[in-house]
Amino acid sequence: MTTHTTTDNPSAPARRGVTHRWTRTLIPTAREAPNDAGVPSHVLLHRAGFIRQVGAGIYDYLPLALRTLTKIGQIVREEMDAAGASEMLMPALEPFELFKDTKRDVAYGDNLFRLTDRKGRTNALAPTHEEVITELLRTCVNSYTQLPLNLYQVQTKFRDEARPRAGLLRCREFIMKDAYSFHLALEGPGGLNEAYDAMYRAYSNIFARCQLDFSAVEAESGPIGGSASHEFMVNCASGEDTILKCPASGYAANVEKCEIGARAFDLNGAPTGDLQEVHTPNLPGIEEVGAFLKVKPRNMLKTLVFKVTGPAAGHEGRATMPKWVLAVVRGDHEVNEGKVKALSGCAVVMAPEAEARLAGFAIGYVSPRAVLETPGTLLLIDADAAQGGFWATGADTHDHHVKHFNWRREVGAALDDPARTIVGDLRNAAEGDPSPRAPGATLVAARGIEVGHIFKLGTKYSDAMGLWVLDEKQQKRSVIMGCYGIGVSRTMAACVEMSHDADGIIWPAPIAPYHVLVTIIRAGDARQAQAAADLAAGLNAAGYDVLIDDRDERAGVKFKDADLVGLPVRVTLGDKALDAGAAEVKARKGAAGAKADLVPLAEVVERCRALLRV
Amino acid sequence: MTTHTTTDNPSAPARRGVTHRWTRTLIPTAREAPNDAGVPSHVLLHRAGFIRQVGAGIYDYLPLALRTLTKIGQIVREEMDAAGASEMLMPALEPFELFKDTKRDVAYGDNLFRLTDRKGRTNALAPTHEEVITELLRTCVNSYTQLPLNLYQVQTKFRDEARPRAGLLRCREFIMKDAYSFHLALEGPGGLNEAYDAMYRAYSNIFARCQLDFSAVEAESGPIGGSASHEFMVNCASGEDTILKCPASGYAANVEKCEIGARAFDLNGAPTGDLQEVHTPNLPGIEEVGAFLKVKPRNMLKTLVFKVTGPAAGHEGRATMPKWVLAVVRGDHEVNEGKVKALSGCAVVMAPEAEARLAGFAIGYVSPRAVLETPGTLLLIDADAAQGGFWATGADTHDHHVKHFNWRREVGAALDDPARTIVGDLRNAAEGDPSPRAPGATLVAARGIEVGHIFKLGTKYSDAMGLWVLDEKQQKRSVIMGCYGIGVSRTMAACVEMSHDADGIIWPAPIAPYHVLVTIIRAGDARQAQAAADLAAGLNAAGYDVLIDDRDERAGVKFKDADLVGLPVRVTLGDKALDAGAAEVKARKGAAGAKADLVPLAEVVERCRALLRV
Repeated sequence: MTTHTTTDNPSAPARRGVTHRWTRTLIPTAREAPNDAGVPSHVLLHRAGFIRQVGAGIYDYLPLALRTLTKIGQIVREEMDAAGASEMLMPALEPFELFKDTKRDVAYGDNLFRLTDRKGRTNALAPTHEEVITELLRTCVNSYTQLPLNLYQVQTKFRDEARPRAGLLRCREFIMKDAYSFHLALEGPGGLNEAYDAMYRAYSNIFARCQLDFSAVEAESGPIGGSASHEFMVNCASGEDTILKCPASGYAANVEKCEIGARAFDLNGAPTGDLQEVHTPNLPGIEEVGAFLKVKPRNMLKTLVFKVTGPAAGHEGRATMPKWVLAVVRGDHEVNEGKVKALSGCAVVMAPEAEARLAGFAIGYVSPRAVLETPGTLLLIDADAAQGGFWATGADTHDHHVKHFNWRREVGAALDDPARTIVGDLRNAAEGDPSPRAPGATLVAARGIEVGHIFKLGTKYSDAMGLWVLDEKQQKRSVIMGCYGIGVSRTMAACVEMSHDADGIIWPAPIAPYHVLVTIIRAGDARQAQAAADLAAGLNAAGYDVLIDDRDERAGVKFKDADLVGLPVRVTLGDKALDAGAAEVKARKGAAGAKADLVPLAEVVERCRALLRV
Repeated sequence: MTTHTTTDNPSAPARRGVTHRWTRTLIPTAREAPNDAGVPSHVLLHRAGFIRQVGAGIYDYLPLALRTLTKIGQIVREEMDAAGASEMLMPALEPFELFKDTKRDVAYGDNLFRLTDRKGRTNALAPTHEEVITELLRTCVNSYTQLPLNLYQVQTKFRDEARPRAGLLRCREFIMKDAYSFHLALEGPGGLNEAYDAMYRAYSNIFARCQLDFSAVEAESGPIGGSASHEFMVNCASGEDTILKCPASGYAANVEKCEIGARAFDLNGAPTGDLQEVHTPNLPGIEEVGAFLKVKPRNMLKTLVFKVTGPAAGHEGRATMPKWVLAVVRGDHEVNEGKVKALSGCAVVMAPEAEARLAGFAIGYVSPRAVLETPGTLLLIDADAAQGGFWATGADTHDHHVKHFNWRREVGAALDDPARTIVGDLRNAAEGDPSPRAPGATLVAARGIEVGHIFKLGTKYSDAMGLWVLDEKQQKRSVIMGCYGIGVSRTMAACVEMSHDADGIIWPAPIAPYHVLVTIIRAGDARQAQAAADLAAGLNAAGYDVLIDDRDERAGVKFKDADLVGLPVRVTLGDKALDAGAAEVKARKGAAGAKADLVPLAEVVERCRALLRV
């Protein structure tokens, strides 16, 4: 099969740069940020004149922001094209009928903007385009010879977030690159795995070229098993997502996905005392119960009841399918539903309370003993909970708990029946847990902002909507899909979160709105203006974009704004320097209060080049 | 005042071209067009695999279309930047409160998409952005030193058209470039007129660089008088707008705006007979009345009643303001409301029927004599109606008309009082009318598709929304605005309307998705594939984009698709040509059935360059 080639060459000599003047564009720097601006990117993008709010979670991208978005978009396009993807553009308006087969309108719920047109028909504002593109290919593609395909767009997306916040990090209208790939097979040339790996590499290139400090982390498993999803996270302390990493092996995953290394367990520890039932009325949570019993949460067992809905996707199912699954973790740990599914081999949902009560579970007071009471129940125990010593837990009776729960004494032989009990990895990982990849190493936690997500979709959409092709043997085959997203406007904000100081933004050169700020100290001074124009021309010829600050403002105001806006290099033209045939040159990044260097005019372009290369 | 400079250089050496392969992108050519596709651009853009319909007036832009849209967008950006405009991006979601002061929600009516979000707030999907940008500037700009400014965006727009039709020509979601300029003054450096002229030149450059055959025509006057609006129309017979041009002077205007040259008139012709009243019941229109009376519409007088609402915008008003205006034209002519306003100096609306009846007008049967019956009435007569000879007209009585109406006999001395009667230009122009610019020349009609519109807005929005700045004397001054639109997706469709033949589209080189189609006759043939790759590399180096048709299809199918898709040059690589060290080269444009030339491989790039230069 011929592979797609592109001769777009990202490393080709940069095109000639542009020069713009501050007074002829709109850069409304401000001393104050809006009251609701909490995170640094929201504060700084507003104060530096990049964005203005139009409504809740809706923003104007002013000229500086658009320049950065365009540069990010260009990097995205070059890497997507080089990876063999074709750009197209789908509409924002999606006729609601498209959701009939996928039911994603239900899955999105209130996050989906809906509108009724003049003819009374319902449309959604697209949050993503799986349905639109699957429908398109359904009508255009019918032979394996037309695959593989990878189609992408850079487009405005809409989600009616319940709590839009943090400026561009959680918006209702935002810019996204979304790509969709289509394959006959999972493996081999032209298969999904090949495209997925190509996208992984393209994403790594994109974020590296944007000079972001990022991690690619394993995320929740996809429907076709394996490591079917990765998130790309910009590393920064203010991120809202937690990542766990193994320093020894390089393994990284988000909290939901992160595996925990092998842990020893023991269900045969001796009892610590007689089982003691305690009346515990009106205590809403494990913290309150623990305080009342004078027991720490880490010495309590938390038992969640799940209802089985079938075999887990990609699993064969068990010989005898249970109806219920009990998931037991320590009181200070969180049950991980993905791990419940993986360990049980069952698709599960949190048990509906009324139904669970009917089946005999004293919801809120369930103990692991419930496995003995309700037939068709499978007991899963996290390794940290499968230990001897003192345990407090529910009494399987409303408003009662027990102390001195002992695994062997209370549950007995059911613990030894693999059809009834499984011990394993059942909870969210946390810092300090053993690494799943390097014996002896422990996981460390870090925070990040998700800017990309790649996903093996499998046949979820093609099966729901009837997208198939005829293979070499004229057999119908469901098309296998992948999807790949990048938050373009979010990437801009994440970059600011990652790279700023007390004075303002510090842009990496490849996505800075301009490379160099040339500041004229005295607006209207002919010599300074001419020197600025000459310097700008030289910098443009070298491929650098220049903003000339030609405002009639005090030098102090201009310097403060220069730090706020955060262009990588500042060149200042004042009388004293010009008298010496020089300009003051200073990198935005570096020691606070660092002095500018006096550089002969003829050498300024070279000095800028050196500073921008860092 | 410093003028904005840009060193973006549209004539810089073209960047390296790209090569894509047909099998690795999505070009779903089709033999049939959708049933509702009437106009050539809709039929051909669908059949050539550029677009697919998603819903009524909503389309997917497939990879070929996106490439053309991107090239048009790039030309637009280069010319806007060169004219001193700054690009930004405003949101599609517009909080409805923004319309509070401008009432444009009412003006747009059902054409405005409205949606209610999860918090119950109403938002519009932006049809344009006057309110958003005026509000933005209101919060960012307060001094004359921040003006002039010209801000633009290339963005998706939404209008809930009652009858979306003609493919991309009348959509509900489409791509538009909209620009807004802001000024302290109308005249002089930095004034609106200077920016308007710069936009006029930029638009002319844009459409010329797209190689469109276009006309810039005067359109309806803006609120601040003068020639305050121009439309840019692509000339083509299938256009839905009519343009009138004076071949002698170059004057061009749309039907609504077009002035008519001086015409002789005569209100003193002798009667043709006694005034004769005829009972004309149940005749709905002038055609039916004429048929019944056996009089041609051109021998009838049509009298429309307007209600005066105040002085016309930009007019001082009349010494005594009339309450009513009668507008009289020949039965085969159309009253032009803009001309009624200009001739009367009054703002008018079509008289509400009940109110007009109360004032004594026999609506449907009004004659010019009504000026004598109802006090405060001004009589306007189009020059072609101010003639002697036979006239039939209304009898000022329900269900009755008169024959042998004579101006002097029926209206008398009121005709000589300039406060009561004005003769002038009152109707829509038509082919054959005298040119307003060249004595003796007559207007010719042509059809076109509007692709651009530039407009002097004046202070309409800044006054409504409170956008002002302090001038040099610290006086508040309303900001003067202009706005400038280009239909980007419409331009692509208009180009197809203008440039196609029976076999398909004929793209002008600057906006063709690719410059050259390299067709491999036998897919999988190593020599042909290698020759294609070599040729593509040479063409890319010369700055040309190449599509290689590497499909395993019959040559006939590929040639038919080549004509349909319409890339400017086709290079065919088959065994016979390659045996001779050559390729077949053919321009898409030219005599139907023209044969391809056999060109030595080493000369193909030069031949393509020559063909593309045309």
